[in-house]
Formats: sequence, structure tokens, C-alpha cells
Amino acid sequence: MNKYLISCFSAAIYLTLALSPFQSFARSEYWNQRVSLFDKLPITSADIVFLGNSITDGGEFAELFNDENIKNRGINSDEISGVKERLSQITSGNPKKIFLLIGINDISHNLSVDEIAKRYDSLVKEIKEQTPSTKLYIQSIMPINNDYGRYKNLQGKESIVLKVNERLKSIADENNATFIDLFPALSDREGKLKREYTNDGLHLLGNGYKAWANHIKEYVIE
Amino acid sequence: MNKYLISCFSAAIYLTLALSPFQSFARSEYWNQRVSLFDKLPITSADIVFLGNSITDGGEFAELFNDENIKNRGINSDEISGVKERLSQITSGNPKKIFLLIGINDISHNLSVDEIAKRYDSLVKEIKEQTPSTKLYIQSIMPINNDYGRYKNLQGKESIVLKVNERLKSIADENNATFIDLFPALSDREGKLKREYTNDGLHLLGNGYKAWANHIKEYVIE
Repeated sequence: MNKYLISCFSAAIYLTLALSPFQSFARSEYWNQRVSLFDKLPITSADIVFLGNSITDGGEFAELFNDENIKNRGINSDEISGVKERLSQITSGNPKKIFLLIGINDISHNLSVDEIAKRYDSLVKEIKEQTPSTKLYIQSIMPINNDYGRYKNLQGKESIVLKVNERLKSIADENNATFIDLFPALSDREGKLKREYTNDGLHLLGNGYKAWANHIKEYVIE
Repeated sequence: MNKYLISCFSAAIYLTLALSPFQSFARSEYWNQRVSLFDKLPITSADIVFLGNSITDGGEFAELFNDENIKNRGINSDEISGVKERLSQITSGNPKKIFLLIGINDISHNLSVDEIAKRYDSLVKEIKEQTPSTKLYIQSIMPINNDYGRYKNLQGKESIVLKVNERLKSIADENNATFIDLFPALSDREGKLKREYTNDGLHLLGNGYKAWANHIKEYVIE
């Protein structure tokens, strides 16, 4: 065995030992920070979990709904596969409800509608299998507004968002989940995220969060 | 008045009209998103506010302390001047307590120890003036660990962190605030942020958040 191989083995052993159960090298530092924090904060059967990416991460849902049982499990930049990877942290607590909002980063990464639908369906089936008692709400991907020109990888993808949302509706129907279309609450007449609700065409300002919260309130309190 | 001037005036008027009270062009899109959300979530006199930058932003303090009155008012990348700019959102509610953790980004931006102390003192005096009934806890800047080599603008600045912390202790003493040194909870024998608590030398993993929460618990519940 030459020195190079020994070095490789040493590195592999070091990494294996150094890696905590919730440190994933495929994910960002921030993803690992959040997931390791969530690992210290177990979900209970009284909880309502908001699960998703930066749009969820940036919210303060316990405050918006004045309900301390609402837990933020959003991670900036997360995608369907990232949510699936960390799913057991949430499902192991058999929460009362999950509000899922994920997929815009998968679109940004140029996955096809079929591939996104396949991954999403697999995620939903895992949720249903791991925690059948949980009410699952599948939220549509929110409208985007490319007038801001801020996100190059979302340019021209308005129709992809709509196509993915059609598939999410079918996935909800097929898997006994509730589909919530967020477009009526957030889009203008042209189907773009309302200018008053955003400053970058993707993320929400405070009144955007309020409009979202108002739109889903009936499902949160039902 | 030539056409150029008219264009300039038109642009200025447009910007003035378009700018909501909490949209600051000097700040990031994310800063404006968070501040506009906080504007919709008024602080009350029963609240305990965690106020700071990304280290606060990434936490879930209501969960860590099992106290729904704890509110997260952290914003990724924020600095002393940013906190001062959005201070009235918090002080107007006369919260019970404020836990302040800010300054590492000012160090990263190469401000001198004197300038940081001056800005911090001014911030503290504003807090005390705007909400004298609030108990103010000034937390030391956390130890950093440059072994990760992740943050180039923090390389070699361990001694600056210590010097700023000495000044924060004096500022707390002079302004009737409580100083909390976070080093005993988070640093190794060499004064570095413990490797087990971080994956980038600056931000906390879940066990880092737990160690921090455990260290300040007596002040949160007192």
C-alpha cells in the first residue's frame, strides 16, 4: 500500500469519525447547521410544521398565527431531496399537520417537470408512510416575478411553475393530501408575484407573509 | 431645467413614493424582507427579544427555551448600524428583556475597536432611552475558529474580538445593562469556538445553540 492510499484511508476514517449523524457533506454548511438544531428540538403530535426552503425559513409562523405549536422547519436553498433527507426529524414526532412548500429550487436547478413530480410524489409517499396520522397540506409553488431580473435560473420559467403545480395537485389527490393553490393569494392578473409582496420576485415581504397566512389560515386552525 | 435633471427628479420622486417605511436601499433584500415582516409582528411588554445577526436568525429560541414570548429578531449579515436602524420596531413594544448579540460583522468589515465601541455605545444608549423599562443583556461576541479558513475577513482577528468584548463589558457597566460573556460556554482552551459546536468557525450547530441557551438560561428565566 503506497503513501497515497494510506493518506486516502486516513482521510476517509477521519471524515467518518468526525461526521455527526446529521452532518451531510452534500448539503450546505447552513443546511447542516439548521438540521443539527432541529435534531435538538423534537416535534410532538401537537405540532404544526411548516416545512420548506428559504420562503419558509424567513417566516415567523408561530407569531403570524399566534400559535406556539407552529414550528419552522424551513432551510434556505433547500430542495425536494433535502427535505426527504431530513424528513425523519419531523415524521418521528407524528405532528398534527405539515404544511409543505418546496420545489422552486428544483425548478431553478433545471430539473424537468417529470423529474420534479417524481421526486415530490416519492417525498409525499414517504411522509404518508412514516406518519399516517399527520394531515398533509401540499402548497403550490408560489408565483414568481421575473421583472426583477434577480434570479437568472428562474427567467422564463413561469410556465414550468404552473406545470409543476398541476402535478402537485394530482399528487395531493392521489395521496390523500390537501392541495392549497397559493396563486389566488399572491399573484397579479398576469400570474406574477405581486410587486407589493416582494422585493426580489421570489421571496416575500411582510405583507406577502400576511397574505399567505391569511389564505391558509382556515387550514391551520381547522 | 434640462431633460437629464427632469429624469433625475422623476426617479427620485418615484423612489420616494415606492419606498415603504421599512424598505432601506442601503440594506440587503433579505434585511428588508425580515424588517418588513417584523413590522407586521408587534412586540409586547411580555416579550423577550433575541436581537442580532445570522447567529440569532438561525436559532429557534421559543423552542429552545419552551417560551412562546421569546421572539427572534435576528437578520443574517446584520451589523450594529442595521440594528440601530430597525430598533424602533422592538423598543416601541417595551419588551421585558432584550438579548443583544451583534458586532462580528462590524469586525469583519474592518471597523476599528474604537469605532465599534462608539457605535455599540450609541446603540445601547438609544435602547435605554427608547425603552427604559426593558432589561438589556449585552452578550459578548462569540469566539470564532479560524482553523476552518472559511471567513477571510475574520482571519487573525481573534484579538480584536477580545478587545471589543472588553469594551462591551464597560459599555454594559456604564449603561446599567447586564454583560454576559459567552466565551466560557463556547470556547476551547485556546479561545477558539469549539469544533463540536460549529461547521464553519462562526455559526453554531445544534449543540452550540444548546450550550449557548444553557449558559444564558438563568437570565432568560430570572
